[in-house]
Amino acid sequence: MDKYDNISPLDFRYYSSEEVFSRLSPYLSERAFVNYQLKVELSLIKALSKKKICSSKAAKEAEAAIKKVKVEDIYEEDKKIKHYTKSVVNLIRKNVSDESKPFIHLTATSFDIFDTANALRFKDATKKAILPELLNLEKNLIKIAIREKNTLQIGRTHGQHAVPITFGFALSEYVSRIGYSIKKIKEASDNVVGKFSGAVGAYNASSLFFGNPEEFEFLVLKELGLKPATHSTQIVEPEFNLDLIHSIISAFGVLANLADDMRHLQRSEINEIAEEFEKEQVGSSTMPHKRNPWNFENVKSMWKEFMPRITTIYMDQISEHQRDLTNSASQRFMPEIFAGFLDSILRLNKLLNKLIVNKECMIKNFEMSKDMIIAEPLYILLSYYRHPNAHEEIRKLTLESQQRKIPLKDLVFKDDNLKRYLSKFNKKQIEIIKNPERYTGIAAKKAEKVCRYWEKELSSLA
Amino acid sequence: MDKYDNISPLDFRYYSSEEVFSRLSPYLSERAFVNYQLKVELSLIKALSKKKICSSKAAKEAEAAIKKVKVEDIYEEDKKIKHYTKSVVNLIRKNVSDESKPFIHLTATSFDIFDTANALRFKDATKKAILPELLNLEKNLIKIAIREKNTLQIGRTHGQHAVPITFGFALSEYVSRIGYSIKKIKEASDNVVGKFSGAVGAYNASSLFFGNPEEFEFLVLKELGLKPATHSTQIVEPEFNLDLIHSIISAFGVLANLADDMRHLQRSEINEIAEEFEKEQVGSSTMPHKRNPWNFENVKSMWKEFMPRITTIYMDQISEHQRDLTNSASQRFMPEIFAGFLDSILRLNKLLNKLIVNKECMIKNFEMSKDMIIAEPLYILLSYYRHPNAHEEIRKLTLESQQRKIPLKDLVFKDDNLKRYLSKFNKKQIEIIKNPERYTGIAAKKAEKVCRYWEKELSSLA
Amino acid sequence: MDKYDNISPLDFRYYSSEEVFSRLSPYLSERAFVNYQLKVELSLIKALSKKKICSSKAAKEAEAAIKKVKVEDIYEEDKKIKHYTKSVVNLIRKNVSDESKPFIHLTATSFDIFDTANALRFKDATKKAILPELLNLEKNLIKIAIREKNTLQIGRTHGQHAVPITFGFALSEYVSRIGYSIKKIKEASDNVVGKFSGAVGAYNASSLFFGNPEEFEFLVLKELGLKPATHSTQIVEPEFNLDLIHSIISAFGVLANLADDMRHLQRSEINEIAEEFEKEQVGSSTMPHKRNPWNFENVKSMWKEFMPRITTIYMDQISEHQRDLTNSASQRFMPEIFAGFLDSILRLNKLLNKLIVNKECMIKNFEMSKDMIIAEPLYILLSYYRHPNAHEEIRKLTLESQQRKIPLKDLVFKDDNLKRYLSKFNKKQIEIIKNPERYTGIAAKKAEKVCRYWEKELSSLA
Amino acid sequence: MDKYDNISPLDFRYYSSEEVFSRLSPYLSERAFVNYQLKVELSLIKALSKKKICSSKAAKEAEAAIKKVKVEDIYEEDKKIKHYTKSVVNLIRKNVSDESKPFIHLTATSFDIFDTANALRFKDATKKAILPELLNLEKNLIKIAIREKNTLQIGRTHGQHAVPITFGFALSEYVSRIGYSIKKIKEASDNVVGKFSGAVGAYNASSLFFGNPEEFEFLVLKELGLKPATHSTQIVEPEFNLDLIHSIISAFGVLANLADDMRHLQRSEINEIAEEFEKEQVGSSTMPHKRNPWNFENVKSMWKEFMPRITTIYMDQISEHQRDLTNSASQRFMPEIFAGFLDSILRLNKLLNKLIVNKECMIKNFEMSKDMIIAEPLYILLSYYRHPNAHEEIRKLTLESQQRKIPLKDLVFKDDNLKRYLSKFNKKQIEIIKNPERYTGIAAKKAEKVCRYWEKELSSLA
Repeated sequence: MDKYDNISPLDFRYYSSEEVFSRLSPYLSERAFVNYQLKVELSLIKALSKKKICSSKAAKEAEAAIKKVKVEDIYEEDKKIKHYTKSVVNLIRKNVSDESKPFIHLTATSFDIFDTANALRFKDATKKAILPELLNLEKNLIKIAIREKNTLQIGRTHGQHAVPITFGFALSEYVSRIGYSIKKIKEASDNVVGKFSGAVGAYNASSLFFGNPEEFEFLVLKELGLKPATHSTQIVEPEFNLDLIHSIISAFGVLANLADDMRHLQRSEINEIAEEFEKEQVGSSTMPHKRNPWNFENVKSMWKEFMPRITTIYMDQISEHQRDLTNSASQRFMPEIFAGFLDSILRLNKLLNKLIVNKECMIKNFEMSKDMIIAEPLYILLSYYRHPNAHEEIRKLTLESQQRKIPLKDLVFKDDNLKRYLSKFNKKQIEIIKNPERYTGIAAKKAEKVCRYWEKELSSLA
Repeated sequence: MDKYDNISPLDFRYYSSEEVFSRLSPYLSERAFVNYQLKVELSLIKALSKKKICSSKAAKEAEAAIKKVKVEDIYEEDKKIKHYTKSVVNLIRKNVSDESKPFIHLTATSFDIFDTANALRFKDATKKAILPELLNLEKNLIKIAIREKNTLQIGRTHGQHAVPITFGFALSEYVSRIGYSIKKIKEASDNVVGKFSGAVGAYNASSLFFGNPEEFEFLVLKELGLKPATHSTQIVEPEFNLDLIHSIISAFGVLANLADDMRHLQRSEINEIAEEFEKEQVGSSTMPHKRNPWNFENVKSMWKEFMPRITTIYMDQISEHQRDLTNSASQRFMPEIFAGFLDSILRLNKLLNKLIVNKECMIKNFEMSKDMIIAEPLYILLSYYRHPNAHEEIRKLTLESQQRKIPLKDLVFKDDNLKRYLSKFNKKQIEIIKNPERYTGIAAKKAEKVCRYWEKELSSLA
Repeated sequence: MDKYDNISPLDFRYYSSEEVFSRLSPYLSERAFVNYQLKVELSLIKALSKKKICSSKAAKEAEAAIKKVKVEDIYEEDKKIKHYTKSVVNLIRKNVSDESKPFIHLTATSFDIFDTANALRFKDATKKAILPELLNLEKNLIKIAIREKNTLQIGRTHGQHAVPITFGFALSEYVSRIGYSIKKIKEASDNVVGKFSGAVGAYNASSLFFGNPEEFEFLVLKELGLKPATHSTQIVEPEFNLDLIHSIISAFGVLANLADDMRHLQRSEINEIAEEFEKEQVGSSTMPHKRNPWNFENVKSMWKEFMPRITTIYMDQISEHQRDLTNSASQRFMPEIFAGFLDSILRLNKLLNKLIVNKECMIKNFEMSKDMIIAEPLYILLSYYRHPNAHEEIRKLTLESQQRKIPLKDLVFKDDNLKRYLSKFNKKQIEIIKNPERYTGIAAKKAEKVCRYWEKELSSLA
Repeated sequence: MDKYDNISPLDFRYYSSEEVFSRLSPYLSERAFVNYQLKVELSLIKALSKKKICSSKAAKEAEAAIKKVKVEDIYEEDKKIKHYTKSVVNLIRKNVSDESKPFIHLTATSFDIFDTANALRFKDATKKAILPELLNLEKNLIKIAIREKNTLQIGRTHGQHAVPITFGFALSEYVSRIGYSIKKIKEASDNVVGKFSGAVGAYNASSLFFGNPEEFEFLVLKELGLKPATHSTQIVEPEFNLDLIHSIISAFGVLANLADDMRHLQRSEINEIAEEFEKEQVGSSTMPHKRNPWNFENVKSMWKEFMPRITTIYMDQISEHQRDLTNSASQRFMPEIFAGFLDSILRLNKLLNKLIVNKECMIKNFEMSKDMIIAEPLYILLSYYRHPNAHEEIRKLTLESQQRKIPLKDLVFKDDNLKRYLSKFNKKQIEIIKNPERYTGIAAKKAEKVCRYWEKELSSLA
């Protein structure tokens, strides 16, 4: 079997791309998972040795033996005995002295190893691969948001022109939402827990040796940098991993929203941004002129693939009594979510690096609605200056403007009923009515503020 | 239309039950929502008055006017003008002097009101209805877990007898998971935010009046006990509400797991717990002898109904540009999730109050596997005492025991090869092999510890 | 409790709108459900009478008694005895002579009644409410598609201008997909089944009286116009209802896609269609000039609310042994899906009736890309006339055209290398290159064909 | 990268198992997909040749060239030009004469090839791999159901003993539901369609050459054994693939239900079935005596992984205008659903082959409730013989029986009030009351009937 004999697009395409693979394979491939399990087995025997249950020689032998265990051999053994963890144990035992054999895996149940190894690799993948790239994305966004903080853009609600903002302000929305996402992912990954409480969580086996088996559990996990769950059965409480996946899926939703915004801004009629094309890149197989936003579309598409998978994790919260195994196969798919997410982060990062901002188009689009934009400040200021029914008045004038094709501004300044109100407007207010491009509120300032806030907030993580 | 003309089972059955309704209707009915919007409008005009944009008289008039607004009238007006928020505004304006009219809703956009009102009522519903009842459930569970901390029960993995625990220990799993859920729900509800940043989030309107419109936003929200989002568009960042719903759905999964455990323990063959039946209650329409665990089944069923709905909230993260309205109708359904969840909490609480624990059945079930249970401590201790291949040895003896129908214990103590290992067992270890009911690890102690931990951890909320 | 005390937006807003309510309440309100159950009980006693198990007098008494049963009384009784179906039975029995009492519900289990009543009302709701309105929508679409079959519109892929079509062709996509949806919904609703096989599906009770209890089941169901399932347990096989819900959710997806297309065509920059506003309608609370496509947005939003609910139905496929009750509460929510769907159908229908097609904008948008459009036919024809590398050649010319701001057509006709190929083009082909608006393929013809096909295909349903 | 460097459990574990891989890789690996695309390109050029657009020599050259194209080269090319289909085209063109080059892919758009290739491989995978194995499973189930049609088993509702059935009857539920699933999957796979209507579905390109381009499309697809969609845009209507996936997910739910039933019947306390263990198989890493139903658990777990993925397909129904690409990456994952499903079918098939039915345990469990079982027939017969309140009467006697620990039967036959009714019971009825094991209705007959029905119904597929 080679790469293209695989069925998962992750394995033949996305995860296996050099960028994703180099970042995630140390944590998330099946090979890596085996290494993590071995690491946990090692931590266990070291603790047994510290607690004088076995000799330090046994721990050293195990350490050497573990280096010889290969994932291929485990799968070979598993085919025979149909027990994955026992296969791992058998292979370690094969390479230690008879004297040391009994201490491999002693007091542990399969899921002491499994769940602890998973916690560890999910934490590592998050901290060493996901968060650094998400921080890169955040920095990139901040850079562009600051750069474009004064770039006039029409604000859009319902796909309709509303009142103006700046493009930097629009991007600062994502600075803020991704900043928050980073914080939540960080928190959730700090919270994952391991366990060494045995087959049903009551420390039945380890209490054969230890008066305080929770202290022993603490010792094993400490070496790995993990805390134990407050309570566990055969498995750790599922809510910690669920919270981590939720934080990722929630962040993925933010990326999908960003991608949607970007691809709509590339619509032929809008054309406010573009993606720089590489020289040899082909836009369409039959329409050579097209520049399709397929990278942004890809991010949205990956979100559609991975978002629903959290439903599996919600279903996996339910495990009967001290556990059933109906979460076992499904849990093996969990790493894929990290891979899909990282692929989209990296893709967006590359896209932002070659993002072209068409300021002229932004202005052109703004100009389309320039006249109508003043409806809002007008109605508000008229209200303020005591017009009893400003919203309705302006609504009618806009209709009249559209029907008679006379600019709203002209209708307004010629309207006898409005004169006495308009005369009360202060200078700044009149300026805005006359120059709607100034009606951007505090867009530029806010863009900057949001960027600086998150820069500082995340500085400890960078 | 009366109750039974409704289509939603919440409205004709679950939410409308006295218990749920009395707790949630002040926050979550449509009537309540209108009241919350009015509250927000009032906070706005009060802030306008504080900032001298309008007179204090206007604020007072508004306060009086607001009391007269009825949800029925709003719906009437909405039918005419097809704009919900504008209908609310019109109705307030109708009841104030001409002079005050312009200041109603001044500087606000519909979703300044909507999103802020939603944040407020979700927060209130969580703190005043959901959390107190969840704390009651937790207390109830703690009480029973402590009471049953020494009640012997066979531990079960894969539906198979494993090694023994205590029933209190089994319940302490849920004490821990619900405790954690309470913490997370609390955190998430503390995090919801309001907004007063106008139509596209850039404070376009409010900056017509204020040099620092963020400070004005802060003022309006402070009165309501809310913080503003770091950034907003026409709407607040969706991740805060999503996190709240996630914390609820995650907790709902814990309840569903508890319910599943309880209903399986009621299986005819297991029969370890029962639900006290009321005198007139009918078990089955054709099988009068049956005692069906339909309340626990109901909790699982409600989870199946509401869990998938978080997918809607994940989809609603995506809103184009400064917002589209494709999250509007869907968002209106969000309160239902609270109602479904509360119904299940109250149901479980009532169930726990009449939970019958059949200790004799627990012992009877334990006795079934009593002999086989020692396989685990045996293999572990044999390993410890240097048996080179204990797991395999014991596995074979268990097969022999099953085939020859001779107790495993007898086979073990008669096995010549094992003698020299058994002679090394210390007294406590021999006791466990001879009395497997003592092989419960630290189940009782752990049950108590978990309960006390969460009692303390949650004491500030109670 | 009145309407606005409800929590479900269906009950206070969508389902309770006159249009939806008048169509669906006879089938889907709780009141209606009770009526359906009574109908099934009546069919049962009639069959018992036909089979001489009871007298025809008993059947007549039951018929009279059933008319007196009110949903309110059932809920009252249920509160006491905690058994819904038994409550129904008790209330019927109360109104018949002692002699007839025993025959009410005789041989039936609750879910014989429940599942049969559900099948019946879902079938009725589909055939009498959903399908007629969906057919109306289809007719409306056909009318517009035919009317606009020659209206030039730029085709769009990836939000980018591609090659031209006609607006009627674009709409005929939905004629086709909705046509197919109607067929599938019809099929699925024809397939729902009832059951009268007793508590575990083995006809235990009815075979106390009948040698061939399946024939008795057939008799009861025939009166109701239903077939029995091939096999049933306490409940009917869940796949029939699931298929019906799937056909609805799939159709809902088509509506959502139509809505998305329509709202994007309303974007300020595109402006190809519009929704006629009513005179008093308000566009925005602060931006009086806006015409938001909120009805189309609403359809998308309702899809987001209801699509995920099919996950519940997929989960409800699993019921332990001869059934557990974990699908009971969840199943009660199933009617809501019909209500959400019908609301969207009716909304779209109304929208189509006031759809404004801006042909000038369509032409204007087409003109934007007019020149580039010829890239496709050019490259294809060049290939055909033996140009060895036409796609690449044209791609380069489009880049040159964009950079030098010279029309592609001019570059092409001036290109010495292309001359010898262009000279081979036949007249029609040259015409298309010179008049790209003719490059619409068979758009108009296809639009007509699709419409006529579905008109005929669905004529038996209309 | 080798197998264990993959991240997808399908690729390193499930799909790559010999059994699944040998069945599905000809259709579903990336390598296979490329072959299918080449097949479609070939069909296209053959049709062009038939229609005299190109020479038959060109078609022959293409046929030879296509054999040389390797997936690895396509990925190499794609890296350079970032266009997958164009890469395929380039590689074919490289291996034909200059003269033939222009005709490769002529008139086609990428998704003419993609969607047609997908339809074809999904159809093939379904018919050649999925359906045959599902039919095997059905046959296996039928064999066992017939064999066990008379094996007494207690029927269970709510996990509680209800009235008796036979184990064959219980299995015939799955014979029926899987039979129906097979029929629906077959139908849905017959319905998938291809397309050759060009970039926006209006046959713009092909109508440059053909007066009736639909006839040309028909020709290309006929060679492949496919029909065209009634309408297409750049892509085929998504509902056909969705219906196929729905039919698979629905069938998967049936398998999950079967697995759940089987694993619960293996509970230690119930123990009615068992899975024969292989000699070297290990039950638990710490509890050597355990026989865990992990294969059945695996089926449930795989269902939990794959069921939610249909949400992606529902979301992919929505594609803007003549298509956007947000369904592209997500669609690539669709084949995984087939693989997960087939793995579970094969697993269940193997499990059924080594299913041990513990008839004694079935009898033992039945005996537990033997006495109470008669409550149902008693109450029904008493009703029939004119007891005015039989249900209530029997309910009270069952309570009395439980409290006084006197068999219900004894209470009944000693009850003075019941005597006059009991005396009317006919012989068969009295026999059932005295021998509740006869109260199995028509379980055995129905089991047989259901099996024979589906045997016949599916005979044309076998």
